[in-house]
Amino acid sequence: MSEMVKVVVDAMGGDNAPEEPVKAAVEAVKEKENIQVILTGVQDVIEAELRKYPDYPKDRIRVVHASQVIETAEPPVMAIQKKKDSSIVVGLNLVKKQEADAFVSSGSTGAVLVGGQVIVGRIQGIRRPPLAPLIPTAKGVSLLIDCGANVDARPDHLVQFAQMGSIYMENVVGIKKPRVAIVNNGAEEEKGNALVKATFPLLKACKDINFIGSIEARDIPSGYADVVVCEAFVGNVILKLYEGVGATLISMIKKGMMTNIRSKMGALMVKPALKETLKSFDASEYGGAPLLGLKGLVVKSHGSARSVEIRHAIFQCEQFKEEKINEKIEEFIAAEQKAQAEEKSEKK
Amino acid sequence: MSEMVKVVVDAMGGDNAPEEPVKAAVEAVKEKENIQVILTGVQDVIEAELRKYPDYPKDRIRVVHASQVIETAEPPVMAIQKKKDSSIVVGLNLVKKQEADAFVSSGSTGAVLVGGQVIVGRIQGIRRPPLAPLIPTAKGVSLLIDCGANVDARPDHLVQFAQMGSIYMENVVGIKKPRVAIVNNGAEEEKGNALVKATFPLLKACKDINFIGSIEARDIPSGYADVVVCEAFVGNVILKLYEGVGATLISMIKKGMMTNIRSKMGALMVKPALKETLKSFDASEYGGAPLLGLKGLVVKSHGSARSVEIRHAIFQCEQFKEEKINEKIEEFIAAEQKAQAEEKSEKK
Repeated sequence: MSEMVKVVVDAMGGDNAPEEPVKAAVEAVKEKENIQVILTGVQDVIEAELRKYPDYPKDRIRVVHASQVIETAEPPVMAIQKKKDSSIVVGLNLVKKQEADAFVSSGSTGAVLVGGQVIVGRIQGIRRPPLAPLIPTAKGVSLLIDCGANVDARPDHLVQFAQMGSIYMENVVGIKKPRVAIVNNGAEEEKGNALVKATFPLLKACKDINFIGSIEARDIPSGYADVVVCEAFVGNVILKLYEGVGATLISMIKKGMMTNIRSKMGALMVKPALKETLKSFDASEYGGAPLLGLKGLVVKSHGSARSVEIRHAIFQCEQFKEEKINEKIEEFIAAEQKAQAEEKSEKK
Repeated sequence: MSEMVKVVVDAMGGDNAPEEPVKAAVEAVKEKENIQVILTGVQDVIEAELRKYPDYPKDRIRVVHASQVIETAEPPVMAIQKKKDSSIVVGLNLVKKQEADAFVSSGSTGAVLVGGQVIVGRIQGIRRPPLAPLIPTAKGVSLLIDCGANVDARPDHLVQFAQMGSIYMENVVGIKKPRVAIVNNGAEEEKGNALVKATFPLLKACKDINFIGSIEARDIPSGYADVVVCEAFVGNVILKLYEGVGATLISMIKKGMMTNIRSKMGALMVKPALKETLKSFDASEYGGAPLLGLKGLVVKSHGSARSVEIRHAIFQCEQFKEEKINEKIEEFIAAEQKAQAEEKSEKK
């Protein structure tokens, strides 16, 4: 049997808390025998929720009380500093003390990002931990790295994003030699803003990734690259525009199908097939975005996540531990630092 | 009768040249009596094309020979310098010499941008001329400014984009007090990269525009703002992702509707209504993107533009001249410079 994986789930985070996170915990331990879930949040509330499910392996769900809740609108740094007894801070501390392998939350993105860095801490040598959601494409999914809160990255940040993203896609998602591309305003090598121009040759020189050059935003949805590297401001624009164009287009299509009797009848007939297709192109379906490069795993699931997405995020954590992603990132960084040190001494 | 408007159309530019640009010229002069078109390009080729249309006001279409063609793949600066007898350079020179009011091309975006700035030249006081396409939204269209080739803009560039964009939307598109927003990675005022943070207070202090704050990419397709201000790298990502998500989603929907007999029958019934809806959300339908802030009007239409879009671009030029957009921009800049001079002398 595979090793036990302990995942903390923030029972108070997100639009559908505590119902959906608790439901996800119950479903996860029922589905996989090697998963333990620790639910953080207000004990009474969580226990009342758990009582709805009489039939689950009770020894693999534990509640750790946290009296406070961080709201989405709170300034993240202050919230993490002041609310020491919040479900997020308590949960991240369990990962820090190695009482758990991973932390999953649908709560405040800012607080999860800040808390992940401040409490769990970065792997030595990692300069900036990126938030990397999976986005749907015509071919499956791609990793969009970085969509975090730290904007204005440096070229060496982007290179580490490319490396960590490759490890993740290869080992967690199972894509051999993932194609890595940098978001650019044209396909030609001379294109780009100052950051992209400085980063491009560094990525090209990376022997350990499968760098395929620039990607124009037009080609992201078609699945032209597996790892889509960009600075966080641009990543945020891509992620949110994906959602926005999708949502607007779908609502226009629905409206369009209601224009006359003929189209209304047709709409009824295409509805089931259409629903299935649109589901596969819904970014929120891929729930969990890992915050890579930390000393434990921190996964941010969508604020509106339902149990199915949170459960997927829990299974992602399992995969992450089994594939020893952090060990691989550490090895990678060590090898890189060694190479740099050798290069330096050669120059001397 | 309104004043005559002279528009140069690049007969050799774009995927569908010379057929579609020539067709657009014929259609435009037939539809509106106050339009004259000058077609630039290889004379024989254009005249052969024109002979397909026996019935049009021949006195309002003129051909100006240009022996060279700039290809899309050519480096723009070099192409403009070397190919002095290309349809683009010849056309832009007609605008420069005030023999025409405007220039419309579906050819190389880079060459049109470089040529517009180098040959036609900027209005005095304009620091950087932005390329500003209209993008479809659930409510109609918004102006996305800047999508040009000059990336890494400064805050004062973005302020001028906001001002010129407002004038354009108010006078050419006819939206009173257009809502101006800056693309940001969050709605809160403290969000943003260094550029946005520096620009935000400047826009807030602008009395002459209706600044409504930040816009997250998610809200662009819903039509939350009329003028969407951003730096060109980000603008390029937005414009191309719009196209990409739309195209991928539509092809997936079509495929989804073909999954079984029931959905296939439904697809036949919704098809006409759906086609109409999707057309209204196709960025290329709004053909012409003006390059604002030049001493004449330069409009870049989509590389794959058909006659209908090029014709719309020609009519845009008419509106632009009638509404005296450039005079309004000049007045604006003069007023701004006067205010700055007064502020300076007050400080002394």
